[in-house]
Amino acid sequence: MKETIIRRITEVPLEDPILIEGLPGVGHVGKLVAEHLVEELKAEKIIEVYSPHFPPQVIVQDDGTVKLVTNEVYAYKGDGRDLLLLVGDYQSATNEGHYELTGIFLDLAEEFGVSRIYTLGGYGTGQFLDKPRVMGATNSLELVEEMKEYGVVFQENEPGGGIIGVSGLMVGLSRLRNIDAICLMGMTSGYLVDPKSAQAVLKVLCKALDIKIDMQALEDRAKEMEKIVGKLREMEKSQMGYESASDDDLRYIR
Amino acid sequence: MKETIIRRITEVPLEDPILIEGLPGVGHVGKLVAEHLVEELKAEKIIEVYSPHFPPQVIVQDDGTVKLVTNEVYAYKGDGRDLLLLVGDYQSATNEGHYELTGIFLDLAEEFGVSRIYTLGGYGTGQFLDKPRVMGATNSLELVEEMKEYGVVFQENEPGGGIIGVSGLMVGLSRLRNIDAICLMGMTSGYLVDPKSAQAVLKVLCKALDIKIDMQALEDRAKEMEKIVGKLREMEKSQMGYESASDDDLRYIR
Amino acid sequence: MKETIIRRITEVPLEDPILIEGLPGVGHVGKLVAEHLVEELKAEKIIEVYSPHFPPQVIVQDDGTVKLVTNEVYAYKGDGRDLLLLVGDYQSATNEGHYELTGIFLDLAEEFGVSRIYTLGGYGTGQFLDKPRVMGATNSLELVEEMKEYGVVFQENEPGGGIIGVSGLMVGLSRLRNIDAICLMGMTSGYLVDPKSAQAVLKVLCKALDIKIDMQALEDRAKEMEKIVGKLREMEKSQMGYESASDDDLRYIR
Amino acid sequence: MKETIIRRITEVPLEDPILIEGLPGVGHVGKLVAEHLVEELKAEKIIEVYSPHFPPQVIVQDDGTVKLVTNEVYAYKGDGRDLLLLVGDYQSATNEGHYELTGIFLDLAEEFGVSRIYTLGGYGTGQFLDKPRVMGATNSLELVEEMKEYGVVFQENEPGGGIIGVSGLMVGLSRLRNIDAICLMGMTSGYLVDPKSAQAVLKVLCKALDIKIDMQALEDRAKEMEKIVGKLREMEKSQMGYESASDDDLRYIR
Repeated sequence: MKETIIRRITEVPLEDPILIEGLPGVGHVGKLVAEHLVEELKAEKIIEVYSPHFPPQVIVQDDGTVKLVTNEVYAYKGDGRDLLLLVGDYQSATNEGHYELTGIFLDLAEEFGVSRIYTLGGYGTGQFLDKPRVMGATNSLELVEEMKEYGVVFQENEPGGGIIGVSGLMVGLSRLRNIDAICLMGMTSGYLVDPKSAQAVLKVLCKALDIKIDMQALEDRAKEMEKIVGKLREMEKSQMGYESASDDDLRYIR
Repeated sequence: MKETIIRRITEVPLEDPILIEGLPGVGHVGKLVAEHLVEELKAEKIIEVYSPHFPPQVIVQDDGTVKLVTNEVYAYKGDGRDLLLLVGDYQSATNEGHYELTGIFLDLAEEFGVSRIYTLGGYGTGQFLDKPRVMGATNSLELVEEMKEYGVVFQENEPGGGIIGVSGLMVGLSRLRNIDAICLMGMTSGYLVDPKSAQAVLKVLCKALDIKIDMQALEDRAKEMEKIVGKLREMEKSQMGYESASDDDLRYIR
Repeated sequence: MKETIIRRITEVPLEDPILIEGLPGVGHVGKLVAEHLVEELKAEKIIEVYSPHFPPQVIVQDDGTVKLVTNEVYAYKGDGRDLLLLVGDYQSATNEGHYELTGIFLDLAEEFGVSRIYTLGGYGTGQFLDKPRVMGATNSLELVEEMKEYGVVFQENEPGGGIIGVSGLMVGLSRLRNIDAICLMGMTSGYLVDPKSAQAVLKVLCKALDIKIDMQALEDRAKEMEKIVGKLREMEKSQMGYESASDDDLRYIR
Repeated sequence: MKETIIRRITEVPLEDPILIEGLPGVGHVGKLVAEHLVEELKAEKIIEVYSPHFPPQVIVQDDGTVKLVTNEVYAYKGDGRDLLLLVGDYQSATNEGHYELTGIFLDLAEEFGVSRIYTLGGYGTGQFLDKPRVMGATNSLELVEEMKEYGVVFQENEPGGGIIGVSGLMVGLSRLRNIDAICLMGMTSGYLVDPKSAQAVLKVLCKALDIKIDMQALEDRAKEMEKIVGKLREMEKSQMGYESASDDDLRYIR
């Protein structure tokens, strides 16, 4: 196995599908949204991608069996809009792997006639936010205008460090193939898995796709997470003295 | 030498052999078991694998000659069950090498008509255990049930970090080739070479293969190691004060 | 995308052009000079180079759109001397990538009939200099003599650590293709972007090319930078005590 | 330049030559010996090897010109024994590069009909030695016996960490091509360039090759180095107190 392997599982005829990418990243925001969509829409797994660029390990599952590290494509044949959903356990462990895998994902996008891509991620701010906003970065000026209507925020030169990994490269490289693409980034502390930020991203995505998705599962996870964050804040207050504690800055948690 | 080289040394006709992998890893548990089998069964070396993914060095032997870093396959033609034994000095030094070499080993497995693979390793617990158990992770649910009969333990999502290296990848990737595979992991402190844990793994393996193996050599090494561990524990007690010393936690030894 | 991609944007017929490289490096001296030339000469972008050896990320621009990491070639068709200008966001993130990309740039140089190459960079001294000099290193003894006339300094075995990256490799590898090449290095502290050092390099380059370039933009940036450096020096003095403060050694600023 | 390049400079007809490798390594012992031989024998450069596995930089020379990082082969056509001498600025910067380059050097050895290889290096002991001995490791038992006659020391399993880099791999990989090879390692502190250790290795080599080489240049460098080592020892004594100072242990110098 010297090369990346694309394993086709089943065929689902799709019409003009939109591709949504949600691989692991900051606050696992993109992963939470994309996996939530897969579950709620009962999307069907159609492709598995194996690669020597992934970490050389297997994941042990609840039932005692193992699972190779993969990136997977799910298909959803809806009444209205058809979707392709890209999810996975890890991103590439090498620089070159990010470019190669993004190229493979865009080959698949072209094969399915995808004309628009949403990549989903988190934008780490170092602070716990009560109302996380959703930032955007696109590969076309028209998309900037369109996305502002759905409440997406565009800030000059933000994120300053650029967008690293598949979420960024897909938006950049899809331009060379004339596919419109936008990266939606939920603001998040960057310290913890963040289902609240995922909810914010999902709301924007639902508006943009004009679909309805039950959010109860994300809501429940967000509430659990709130409790953990609440405890962390309390610990912080008691450690630092009540007065001086900054309520929302938990930068020291990693 | 830009590519991995497979050097065939001799041919041994085998019938429906089982492949057993024991390369270096946690506590060298898998290596101890597989090399013990090679010696006790007087298995014959049939293949040497050289690779630019191995560390760029040679090993100096007792007689003043050097030995390239290799992974090697030994064949055992028994009365009952034929075996292929995979042993070696090192695993790959690169991520991609783990995938490539595992692919090469599975090509060989297919060539020999292997229908089942046992990969052997250690599972580091951070504690010295008097009766090390053997954990398992498989690529088929039927194997989980079968292995429980031999005393193999399956715990939900354990090992939590997955199984890294050839032992894990072989179990995962062999599924794509319809070969049953199980990883047997002897629990071990993770700090020292552990022949006692190797004995525990070997006992399970003998039951599963329905073969008998003299264990005296492992027994002797285990007793030597017991003495070393005993001394370490004493040192720990005298350092920490008799009362407070945790008897089995030697996490600080590396 | 497993390979470096050369994307041709437009064709500009050039006569015996000179190639000037100014990619990011110490003090961004080379980048400042080359980008200043692109702007002042209104040079036209003719080639974009994408590579899996670049960092796997995109840059977010002012208007909310993203830009892939590229190296770019601009063409200037002048009254006198035609120029090719090589600029970019990043150099290769891998060792091998430096060699590959330099090879690609020299292929392009040969294609355009380039007979001389100037590579531009900074030479970090650890000190703020009022009158930064320009050091040189060439691939022909004739060029050493010629460049001394323009005020370029050659010091035995300097820089002692050699010249790392594309600026060095282009000078070395172009010898194998019989192209004359020189690396011009503006002395700079190495701690900050240094437009003053860039001015010094540009002056030498203008003499060597016998062209005139307005330097106001660099002048303005240099003045801004002077203020920042001034403040840093003051901070240093107040921290260290006025007497003992070394006026030009700000090695601790990174 | 994605591949290693072999550049032939001139042809020298050699009869049954012996290959001597002396690339940079511990104490630069091998490099000192091989370069001394090139100079004393006035050997002629016949091959330059360039590789993307070398560090991506150029070396600036005394005259202001640059030099690519290379490994080079020199030929010596003697009255008696013909020699090929392999020297260079750096070894590979990557693991895989060590294997690839060693393969290339052995291809050249086969092309020239080499039947024996000497690889030269240092063996770091952590101590300054007045009479450094020369250790050996070979790829044939006959060579062990032969080399003992020239005073080469063989110690069980020494060096314990194996022999890293081209010096080790050449001895190991040449066995697969039926070429006899031995690595001669001069014992050295490992902290400083060591011409005295180089002299010891050269003496063994001269006996083995039955040639005479003037050693004055190495002698002179060794004397200079003695003075530096002497000063270091004095500094050590004054720091640690005269009585307690260990006379030959300067492990703290790097």
